[in-house]
Amino acid sequence: MKYLGLCTDLYELTMAQSYLYEGKTGTAVFSLFVRKLPEKRNFLISAGLETLVERIKNFKFGDEEIKYLKSLGIFKDDFLDYLKDFEFSGNVYAIPEGRIVFQNEPLVQVEAPIPEAQLLETLVINTIQFETMIASKAVRSYLVAKGKKLVDFGFRRAHGLEAGILAARASYIAGFDGTSNVEAGREFGIPVVGTMAHSYVMIFDKEEDAFRAFAKLYPKNAIFLIDTYDTIEAAKKVVDLAKEGVPVVGVRIDSGDIVKLSKEVRKILDENGLKNVRIIVSGGVDEYKIKEWFDRGAPIDAFGVGTKFITSADAPYFDIAYKLVEYEGKPKYKLSPGKKTFPYKRQVYRYYENGKMKYDETAKWESKREGEPLVELVMKNGKLIKELPSLKEIREVVMSELEKLPENYKDITKHYEYEVKILDWE
Amino acid sequence: MKYLGLCTDLYELTMAQSYLYEGKTGTAVFSLFVRKLPEKRNFLISAGLETLVERIKNFKFGDEEIKYLKSLGIFKDDFLDYLKDFEFSGNVYAIPEGRIVFQNEPLVQVEAPIPEAQLLETLVINTIQFETMIASKAVRSYLVAKGKKLVDFGFRRAHGLEAGILAARASYIAGFDGTSNVEAGREFGIPVVGTMAHSYVMIFDKEEDAFRAFAKLYPKNAIFLIDTYDTIEAAKKVVDLAKEGVPVVGVRIDSGDIVKLSKEVRKILDENGLKNVRIIVSGGVDEYKIKEWFDRGAPIDAFGVGTKFITSADAPYFDIAYKLVEYEGKPKYKLSPGKKTFPYKRQVYRYYENGKMKYDETAKWESKREGEPLVELVMKNGKLIKELPSLKEIREVVMSELEKLPENYKDITKHYEYEVKILDWE
Repeated sequence: MKYLGLCTDLYELTMAQSYLYEGKTGTAVFSLFVRKLPEKRNFLISAGLETLVERIKNFKFGDEEIKYLKSLGIFKDDFLDYLKDFEFSGNVYAIPEGRIVFQNEPLVQVEAPIPEAQLLETLVINTIQFETMIASKAVRSYLVAKGKKLVDFGFRRAHGLEAGILAARASYIAGFDGTSNVEAGREFGIPVVGTMAHSYVMIFDKEEDAFRAFAKLYPKNAIFLIDTYDTIEAAKKVVDLAKEGVPVVGVRIDSGDIVKLSKEVRKILDENGLKNVRIIVSGGVDEYKIKEWFDRGAPIDAFGVGTKFITSADAPYFDIAYKLVEYEGKPKYKLSPGKKTFPYKRQVYRYYENGKMKYDETAKWESKREGEPLVELVMKNGKLIKELPSLKEIREVVMSELEKLPENYKDITKHYEYEVKILDWE
Repeated sequence: MKYLGLCTDLYELTMAQSYLYEGKTGTAVFSLFVRKLPEKRNFLISAGLETLVERIKNFKFGDEEIKYLKSLGIFKDDFLDYLKDFEFSGNVYAIPEGRIVFQNEPLVQVEAPIPEAQLLETLVINTIQFETMIASKAVRSYLVAKGKKLVDFGFRRAHGLEAGILAARASYIAGFDGTSNVEAGREFGIPVVGTMAHSYVMIFDKEEDAFRAFAKLYPKNAIFLIDTYDTIEAAKKVVDLAKEGVPVVGVRIDSGDIVKLSKEVRKILDENGLKNVRIIVSGGVDEYKIKEWFDRGAPIDAFGVGTKFITSADAPYFDIAYKLVEYEGKPKYKLSPGKKTFPYKRQVYRYYENGKMKYDETAKWESKREGEPLVELVMKNGKLIKELPSLKEIREVVMSELEKLPENYKDITKHYEYEVKILDWE
């Protein structure tokens, strides 16, 4: 897939052709927003903008794409010529990555001749929903991890390879420390980490031979998976190895009663002078488990967080929409039950009290209210007008945002709805 | 991403280097299986094999990949040379796409020198889980749709673009009739379909002008979205248009009380001689809604199935594993609590009674039992040894499989566990 022009729903193309045919090429504004946060999300972390900008640049139609569209028999030659030359020429307004956002806030607004803005619909929703959803899930583990290390172990159960790679990005900005995903390491410069699998332990005649072989090659990363046969026995073997002089950095427990095992293993290690050996836990880890285990006093130093975070299992999609809000300067809105939209290109203003977020307002772009404006012009006439921040910078934005978020919204078990006032309805 | 070699977890690479360093290059068999079906799945549709074969062929390391791995400082030059020349040389055994499968059945078995088989772990799980999960979700809509049309409308809320494209493939083999996803149409030859969005209706001064303009350009696909303002009023406008001679193929309802609206709209259409005009429903459609609406007598002709199917929302991941089961001809298994594995490369035998599936057995590959064997050798010494079926052929396999599945397993609301006997434990 060299070009992304076909990464769209068919109706975007049929509507675009009709718009052009009817001379409807006025400037439209479409707004992407989450209508209602899932019950288990008190706030979201805005993410995916850099991916979106890359994708929009690549939203073009090459010979192969044109040939396929022609084969469908529903597009006229002059429309195919229009697509052949297609390059997005509009403006993109967005809330930068890493900001905390809420329901009904325009994460991305696309302002362009309507055929262009329409063609991008599928791409915009697909891109922003996924990374925002994953960052917003990952940050919940960060909130309960009490400064302990978090690593993305989810690649294998992501919805495809691309999802795994983008999720590694989203989790890193949300406070994870690294990923097991090597491609994500290369693409985004995220620290890559890993230990060993059960298969590795099983290949050696004795468990301790596997540990010894691994430590020989990776003395700085000598983390041993100790639950293949008997976790407690394996912990004792680790002690013996350390006494032999084998480097031991940590042990990983991937199954069983994590609280009980981690306490017993900690005791064995401590009693043998291995206070610096870390305990890493994986297998079914999510924010609920982390909280529960810490509440029960489990001495865990790091978590491999996998399946449930990378699929955003308790909220695997958002009620997210990309809606027409303005056409030729006039407000547009929809009245369908449960699917009402708010007219106009909008700014989001944030208000604080004692340094903590108090409420937000969304109002007409030109409204000049007093709060902190969140929305920025990112692409103008199809060109990026400012350098996008690095992944590390976005991560720092998230950390600073969490400082400003009142504590109740950080609760992972209770629902609190932050106030977003919607001005300028008509 | 030209090559897929880095689409792996770091530990696969560190283990592979250690295996080579320790001279552990014997033949291993790894088995991919679902440990326990989610409560809301009575059976699965095997899918993703073609994607996997393509990915395995492309699992290589180019200059860029080698350069990145070198930069990590943990891989020796001779291992990097090994990767530079890497090409999978082993055997792949699999249950063909479209077959009905159950818990503990080896969907894919990789037999290769252990460093190779280990390196593929992440790729195999990622690929097979996703497509199998989506096909297994999609088929549930097919089971309750009573022969009415089903179309994939999920692209926008898939976990990334790739997930959307592969989900279109998986849903087509599971009985869907088409997709809105244009790229999937091009890649897989799936019929592409679409109607119009609310934005399109809102751009015209009057609702009926939008319908008229659309029908003029697409007389064969004149399906009008009628819920932008008032669904009943819009249905009446559709009748007027038809009387004017405007072609009308169908109407789409995307919100509101679907049962009530579809009945009223049907009545309006029928009373005005528009018995052939179809009613298409979208918006929050899944197998539960389809069943409920039909149980309540809704006269719906086609469904746009989106978000909940494309994210497999009620089971967004499986308890799926890729485990070492044999090394150098010796059985291997794991004893971790809740994570037991079964040794040996295996065949799956299926037994029937009166043409309906009765139970399955898994036994040693060489066991020659009486049932129908499901597992086939697909790749030998790294090469595909048989042409894989076309998408249409796979779809026919699914249809034929559903014929053989006893009715109780087709219930989407109750859980029935099919018997899979596991022979040859040790």
